[in-house]
This record gives sequence, structure tokens and C-alpha cells, in this order.
Amino acid sequence: MQSFRDIRLQGFANRVPVAAATAWIDARCAALPSETLPLAEAFDRILAADIAAPRALPPVPRSGIDGYAVRAADTVGASGYAPLTLRLIANGAPLTPGTAALVEAGHPLPPGADTMLPFTLCEPGQGTIDVLNSVAAGADIESAGDEAGAGALLLAAGRCLHPADLGLAAITGLDTISVVRHPRVRLIPATPGLTADANTPMLTALIHRDGGQVEPVRSTPTDSAALRTALNATDVDLIVVCGRTGTGPEDFAAPVLAEAGELAFHGLALRPGDSTGLGRVAGVPVILLPGPPAACFYAAELLVGRAVRRLAGRPADLPHRTVVRPLRRKLTSEVGSTDIFPVRLSADGAEPIPSGSSFALYPTVQADGFVIVPAELEGYAPGTAVAIFLNDPI
Amino acid sequence: MQSFRDIRLQGFANRVPVAAATAWIDARCAALPSETLPLAEAFDRILAADIAAPRALPPVPRSGIDGYAVRAADTVGASGYAPLTLRLIANGAPLTPGTAALVEAGHPLPPGADTMLPFTLCEPGQGTIDVLNSVAAGADIESAGDEAGAGALLLAAGRCLHPADLGLAAITGLDTISVVRHPRVRLIPATPGLTADANTPMLTALIHRDGGQVEPVRSTPTDSAALRTALNATDVDLIVVCGRTGTGPEDFAAPVLAEAGELAFHGLALRPGDSTGLGRVAGVPVILLPGPPAACFYAAELLVGRAVRRLAGRPADLPHRTVVRPLRRKLTSEVGSTDIFPVRLSADGAEPIPSGSSFALYPTVQADGFVIVPAELEGYAPGTAVAIFLNDPI
Repeated sequence: MQSFRDIRLQGFANRVPVAAATAWIDARCAALPSETLPLAEAFDRILAADIAAPRALPPVPRSGIDGYAVRAADTVGASGYAPLTLRLIANGAPLTPGTAALVEAGHPLPPGADTMLPFTLCEPGQGTIDVLNSVAAGADIESAGDEAGAGALLLAAGRCLHPADLGLAAITGLDTISVVRHPRVRLIPATPGLTADANTPMLTALIHRDGGQVEPVRSTPTDSAALRTALNATDVDLIVVCGRTGTGPEDFAAPVLAEAGELAFHGLALRPGDSTGLGRVAGVPVILLPGPPAACFYAAELLVGRAVRRLAGRPADLPHRTVVRPLRRKLTSEVGSTDIFPVRLSADGAEPIPSGSSFALYPTVQADGFVIVPAELEGYAPGTAVAIFLNDPI
Repeated sequence: MQSFRDIRLQGFANRVPVAAATAWIDARCAALPSETLPLAEAFDRILAADIAAPRALPPVPRSGIDGYAVRAADTVGASGYAPLTLRLIANGAPLTPGTAALVEAGHPLPPGADTMLPFTLCEPGQGTIDVLNSVAAGADIESAGDEAGAGALLLAAGRCLHPADLGLAAITGLDTISVVRHPRVRLIPATPGLTADANTPMLTALIHRDGGQVEPVRSTPTDSAALRTALNATDVDLIVVCGRTGTGPEDFAAPVLAEAGELAFHGLALRPGDSTGLGRVAGVPVILLPGPPAACFYAAELLVGRAVRRLAGRPADLPHRTVVRPLRRKLTSEVGSTDIFPVRLSADGAEPIPSGSSFALYPTVQADGFVIVPAELEGYAPGTAVAIFLNDPI
């Protein structure tokens, strides 16, 4: 931890590497306890505990089709020219030689049946059917346990729940399911009132994407005392302050956090986003984000998203789909600094979009994604194949 | 349209190609009208109307950093050995030669200033600053319109809204945004009560993923009259019936739809999923899905998802991320039938997961994704590189 030094009207003396900031987050953000949800509300949530099959699936032999349960031996030699007649009995009673029972798909087979005869291979009579073809034993039936044995692990804890998972959970008899609780994030917009608050809708969306829920803040703190009050950490898992993190005279976010709790870092070797800070109040992690929207966006992608994903039990790394493309122009970075560049994809590569300002969000919006130049590199030469983190949700 | 023929206890006489079913949906499902939402609720929605810049961005020249607005000419020759002293004036007044004004990042430059001096290049005095280095004109400032000119198209209609888009919309002065309305989907579980209703949670999740909202149904219709009542199409954009679509005596979904409105198709050349049907009631599309969960799942992926995505203004094709891998075993299909196979990915290929039953959801859950063998092929030989539609949301 740095000892607190007021950098206002001074500038940052040093900046912490992004890897140190993500390690700090990883050490302090772990998956939250579980909550129980109705199955239909658990899509895309993280399963909190293993689900095993309480009994074999299917529990008893069943038919896979609509048709007649028969004994295969009773159909041997049947043809359209020489049909064999079977007597229909109610489904459920044991099938004796020479009998058949109507069974709908998914229903249990009667004892004694060993195969299913489709409607297309018979003609109905009066209390009888005429079998027009032979069927092999085992056709269109499932034995008990064919899908899974009793006790089989069906869904492992930590899994992100897909639609079919919820159906399978229902089949085991569950109405509800235990998932990692949503991280509750207090989002404190401390951006000066000069410009519209671009950060709140942007961060609300980002936090939602990664599995968090934003707790509303009643009002924008415009001075130190108001921010101190807003930092009261009751009932939230993460606090995010946007703005007031720079070196101007009104940039009170870092001194207030240092006084209210712990300011672990202020100043990050990230561009844009270098006025980011990290700390805690009453054990709750606090992330101080730059107010300029583009800086806020990328710092949130790297740090807030990571904290939310870890609290939500999700994989910690960026969730973006990536593609690899050759750069069409060089990217110049500084050794020690993690630099982010919005790029547009073209048929033959990735074209960086010039952006002179950490306030300009339009380059980010126009981009198909972004390139991260890691701290240890001084950039990429033209033609270098780089990973592009795509903006599209899928 | 087929004329209605009751296939119960008979079997399907013919099955419609999947391409005909998707064409039917495409012709009847178009993007819904717009609704207006607060920006923070519009993530991942489809923008209904273009958003242009109402004025230049930025509207006036602004500073990109915290520091002092100066005239570059006033810093020429300054050094640590020979600092030049400038008199501080309040920000806002025109900068005359020999003066400087404290300006925070993002704030307008005072008239007369042409560059910014960072705090690290000066020493504060009493109402003055000592400049320790020269700065070039234009450093760390943005001119009006640098980001976008007045009237520039910032966000085009049809775009899926990303987090940064919402920030940019806020910057233009918007509090709300016009997006394509959520499709309202009535989901009618007509699965016989024999087994747990796996389909409702599964389909609720699928519909939600694709941008739809499921309207609750009060009770499961257990007979024709109850289904007829549930098909009343008030205030919904799509109706989905699950179950009762097969050839058993209780499979009343298709006859009820034929009587209540229009049954366009019943019987689809899709495996699993061949008892799927399509039609309309009072102009509202109705999709009849098979009750067996695996059949229901894949038929829903191909048809319900498509209808929901089109109504929601999203791209119609499957939203899954795909990868291409060689098959490790052959897949056998039937010409004319679209066949779907769950597969598991391994380091060197895709391994089909055997599934004998349209009831068995566990193979789908165990799979990393699925392969679609199109109608015109009779399968794939081992080693064929095929596209795999991945189950993971991202």
C-alpha cells in the first residue's frame, strides 16, 4: 500500500502496473454466497452447488415414440400381405403373448413389452391391430438409466447455466436452483456537473453484463463530505466512484477514500485511465474511476468488470470474444504502461481509430473492438497479428 | 398451407423442410415498433432510430488534462534554470500575454489560450506560476468538433446497444433512448403432467436470451377447450405451445390450432423436433413445439429463437458463437431432413455424443455445442471440418 500523498495540483509521482491492480482485486474479490431462484430466472447465472441425478434417468423403461408396445417375437413374419393380429389391452397391465398396448411417447412401457410398433406399421381394427411389419426388440425404447444413472453428476458447481441446464434441473424434480448471488454494486457518479453524466448508463450496462446489479445512489456527491457519506458501505459488495480522481483542485475522491478507509493505489499505468484508484471501506473494495468517459470505460472494463465477475463466480478475464488480425498501422506504447486502442476491422486487418482524448467516446463507439498493448511492450509494428477484444456482446 | 389432416394414431404423411418453416417465419415476423427507455436500461437492445450529434463534440475547445491554460508563446525559453513567471487569472476571462488560468480536464479553454501546461512542468507561486519548460501550441487540448461534427451520425438504427453507446447518447444530452420493443411471448406448456415441465424454464431462458419477454400463463391446458382459451392472442406478439403435437390420442395441439386459426404446417423435416407445427391465431404467429425436451430445445433454437430475434429487430440467424473442428466420428443423416447432433469439443476435434431419444436432455447439457446437418446432405464423413454452434452464451 502506498502511503497517502495528495497529488492534486502536483501530478502522479508514480503509477501502479495494471497487473498489480488486478492481483489486488483477485485477492479481495471471491464468489459470493448463494441464493435460490426459480429455474426460469436462473439463465446465465453461476451454479453454486453440484446437482446429481436423484434417481436413474429415465427411472423406468419408456417409449420414445407414439405407438404400440409389443413383444418383438409377436411381430416376426408380419407383412402387408400376411398381417399378424394382436389384441389391444390397456397400458399398464403386463403384456402377454399376442397382445399390444397403446403407449404415448415418454410414457413407461408395460411389463413384458420389449419394443415399440409405430402407427405407420399397423392397421387398427376393433380392439385389435394388424401388424404389417416385424420390429426388432429394443426399437424406439429407452431402458432405465440410459440417459444417466442414479447419483450421476448432471451439473457441476461453477457452471454458467444454459437454457437446457434448467430443463435438466426440472427433470430431476427441482423447481428452484442455488446460484451465486448477484454482486451488489454501489455506483457513485462524482463527475462534475459540467457535462452530462455519460458514465452512469455506461457502467450500469457493463456491470449488468458481468453479472452485477447496480444499487441506485440518491444524489451525486459534489463535495468531500457528501462523498464520504456515499461511501458508507452497508449492504453492497463493491463500490465504484466515477470522477474526481484527477489532479485538479476539486479531485477529492482519493483523499476522501484515504480518510474513510484505505487507499491502496491511486494512479494506474493504464492509458486511457491513469487516474484510477483502488481501496476499501469497511472491508468493501472501492474502485475510483476517471471521470473522462473513454478513460472511465476502459478502466472499468479492466478493473470493475474483473471485480464483478469474480464476485459473481464468473471467469475473471475479459468476457469478450476475440479475433486475431494483422494491424494496418503501428501502435506506439510506453514500456511499463498498458495502453488500449480502439480498432475497426476490415477485410484484411485491424485499423486503429485515432483518439486524442480520454473524453472522446465516439472512437470507442465506432470501433469493432480494442487492442491491449501490455506493459512489457513498446507497441506493435504494422502487420503484427494482434488479439482484438470485440465490442459485440456475442 | 396444408389442408388439415388429423395425423393422430396415423403418423405424419409428409414433413415440411426447415427452410420452408424459417421462410414462413421470416415472412410473418418483422421488427416491432419502438419503446422509450432510460439509457441505463437499454443495454443489448436494438436502437430504433438514428442518433445524430445535435451540436459539435466537443461544442467548444476544451482541455484534455488538469493543468494551466497558457499561450504557447509565453513558455518559449522556459526551463528549470530559467523559469518564466505567469500571472494566474480566473478561468473564463480572456488570456492576455503573460497570464495563465487553472483549467480542469474536460473544461472549456479560456479565449486566447492555445495549449495546456501540466502541473509537472511548473511551480506554484503567490498568484503566479513558474513555467519550467516550454509547451507546444495545441498540446492536450481538443478543438470544437474534434470528436464529431454537428449532425454527424453517431448511432445508426438497428444497432445492438453496447455500454459505450449509452454513454455517447448521454453526452448528446439524451436521458432516454428509443429501442425496438421487447417481443411478448405467450408460452403455453401443454406437456402432459406425467413428467416435470422441463420446457418452461428452458424456453423462458431461450426467449430471454434472444430479446423476448415471456408472458405468464395461468394454468397448463389439459384438454382441447383449455388450449383453445389459452390461444386467445390478446396483447402478445408470438405464441409458443409446448407439447401435445405428436401422433398420440391426446395430441390435440394441431387440431385445436387448425380450428382456432390457421395451421400452416404440422410435421417438420427436423430431427429431433419432427412434430413441430406453425400457424396463426388472429394474425399472431403460433409455434407448436414437441413436448420431448431435447426435441423441444432444438426446434425452439431454430424456430422460436428466429421468430423472437426478428420481432426484436435482431439478426435472424442463430446467435451462437461458432468454431470449426474436424468430426471424430461420422454423422449419418437422411437427405431431406435437417438433423442436429450434440458434440463435445476435444483438443483435436468434435466428438458426437450419442443420444437415442428426443426426451434425453443430458446429452445436450454435456455437449459443448451442436452440429446441424443440412437437409441436402446425408451426413458427414469422419474428419470433415464442420461448424459447431457453441452452447456458451459468449
